[in-house]
Amino acid sequence: MKLLKLNKIIKKIFINHGLSNNHATISSNAIINAELVGAHSHGLSRLKMYCERITKKVINPKPKIKIKKISQSISFIDANNSIGFVAADIAIKKAIENSKKTGIGMVAVKNSGHYGLSGYYAEQAVKKNLVTMIYTNAPPAVAPHGAIKSLFGTNPICFGTPTGSKIPFILDTSISMINRGKIRLAARNNKKIPKDVALDKFGKPTADAKKALKGVQLPIGSFRGSGLAWMVDILSGVLTGSNHAGKVKDPFDDFSGPQNIGHLFIAFKTNLFVNNYNSRIKNNIRTIKRLPKVKGVKNIMYPGENKFKRFKMNSKKDIRVSEIIKKDLEMLKN
Amino acid sequence: MKLLKLNKIIKKIFINHGLSNNHATISSNAIINAELVGAHSHGLSRLKMYCERITKKVINPKPKIKIKKISQSISFIDANNSIGFVAADIAIKKAIENSKKTGIGMVAVKNSGHYGLSGYYAEQAVKKNLVTMIYTNAPPAVAPHGAIKSLFGTNPICFGTPTGSKIPFILDTSISMINRGKIRLAARNNKKIPKDVALDKFGKPTADAKKALKGVQLPIGSFRGSGLAWMVDILSGVLTGSNHAGKVKDPFDDFSGPQNIGHLFIAFKTNLFVNNYNSRIKNNIRTIKRLPKVKGVKNIMYPGENKFKRFKMNSKKDIRVSEIIKKDLEMLKN
Repeated sequence: MKLLKLNKIIKKIFINHGLSNNHATISSNAIINAELVGAHSHGLSRLKMYCERITKKVINPKPKIKIKKISQSISFIDANNSIGFVAADIAIKKAIENSKKTGIGMVAVKNSGHYGLSGYYAEQAVKKNLVTMIYTNAPPAVAPHGAIKSLFGTNPICFGTPTGSKIPFILDTSISMINRGKIRLAARNNKKIPKDVALDKFGKPTADAKKALKGVQLPIGSFRGSGLAWMVDILSGVLTGSNHAGKVKDPFDDFSGPQNIGHLFIAFKTNLFVNNYNSRIKNNIRTIKRLPKVKGVKNIMYPGENKFKRFKMNSKKDIRVSEIIKKDLEMLKN
Repeated sequence: MKLLKLNKIIKKIFINHGLSNNHATISSNAIINAELVGAHSHGLSRLKMYCERITKKVINPKPKIKIKKISQSISFIDANNSIGFVAADIAIKKAIENSKKTGIGMVAVKNSGHYGLSGYYAEQAVKKNLVTMIYTNAPPAVAPHGAIKSLFGTNPICFGTPTGSKIPFILDTSISMINRGKIRLAARNNKKIPKDVALDKFGKPTADAKKALKGVQLPIGSFRGSGLAWMVDILSGVLTGSNHAGKVKDPFDDFSGPQNIGHLFIAFKTNLFVNNYNSRIKNNIRTIKRLPKVKGVKNIMYPGENKFKRFKMNSKKDIRVSEIIKKDLEMLKN
């Protein structure tokens, strides 16, 4: 399907569900971006879910979003259960604004929902020549080290920086061995998952995506990844006044109330301590790319490089829309 | 050996090597603390190395440390090749001061050296009721994803927060499968290491600690851990004007110049967005501790809990000093 046509359809769907023109544009752009970078688990496959949550009144299509100034550098946003895309878009813009004034900006968000890819918001800050760190929590998927029940989300850690080139450095990594969205997509398409990334509900390793969804995902580096997930839950949940400790509802399965996800956005200038940041990081990346490589590896890539290349490539062609999604679009349009 | 006696000896050793009384106290306390929390690889086993670096003029025993104010929240420290303990102690105190004024404090350090445990400095901020994030780079130990040569340090990610109880939450995790200090200690004591944590210099998995030291350590979660290590190198090296991209010298083996390690300290108030942070985090920890446990696990521990318990226990008794260390002390004292 043509990019513009698809974007128009998604936007219309969101407007039909009560979103303002502006909020529908923000949301549609975020979903299209996820498709273009190849993160299909965070793109069109979630559209039906977002609409269902609006219909069932657990996402507020007409939120009264409040922005509170805490200090010159710090702001606090109550997103009033808006769709996550809109809350995150306002938050990163505020963090950018604050950092331009004082060198560093921090923005916390409460009463938000799933906002798609952290890296999408990181890019906005990086384009303004800022370093950024972004945290969000998510529904239970990963068991704390020592537990046999999921509690942490896949709680991504996101870090972005300019590189002195047109391709930004965007690390956007879940602390689980695999993204939950990938398991969900595999389950939907009856595909297998690797064997060391999840346990079934009885605590046994499984390659069956459906069983994994009912079980427990494993964190990277056992207690280390578990600690990182806990950190993200504290930074985005405890600190911000949002749900935490496993209380964030699964957006697909639980319509008993809003998710009340929390996010934390930090941004700061690259030239606080050095006046040649761009040449320094260029040199850093160049040095690493020149290292001797593992057999079969042609190019050492930095985080975000692959996504950028996919984005460029996919932007030039039609977007492949599966039959399942086509049915979703047809249904939601009317 | 009695704690006080040992502390006195270490302090005297540092003073003999030219440190001021104050800097010797800071350094001695940090080394004793590492022993008490059970991080022997960051304690007495490094004393000889620090002294050797002072003697060989690659640590400056009488540094002129400059603190520059960048903004109300942000400071920049040129440590003038001081021993790392001293630079880090000044930096965390400055970050605490800045955060008390404006809500958030950020302090970058350049021309520093190995400062021991990040968690030791995090504790200082947590005792002042602040959340803190600390980054430092380190000599090459871990290969970037796709490379067969070490370049990243074990680059710890450190996060600390008050818990509403006397035991702070201190995550202080290297991004390698195992701490380099542990491999070094195993090599010194002719002990084996686990098989999945390192490769020898030919790229083959090895359980031989000495071979691992000459080879490559593996990051947690392959490309994820590699990305996190890269992030830490950028935050502590590129951003601060310090060595990066594998240029940090190994403190044990390379006396050709100062390490010029960089650190980044961030601290912020817990009550920026909620007025009941302590009860929220207490509830978070309680909920997680109550989860059903893996067979054999009695208690789900949060990061820092074990170290705190070891500290309490070890503070009450004599410190075990190995024969090798006794010889070091004897030699360095005179």
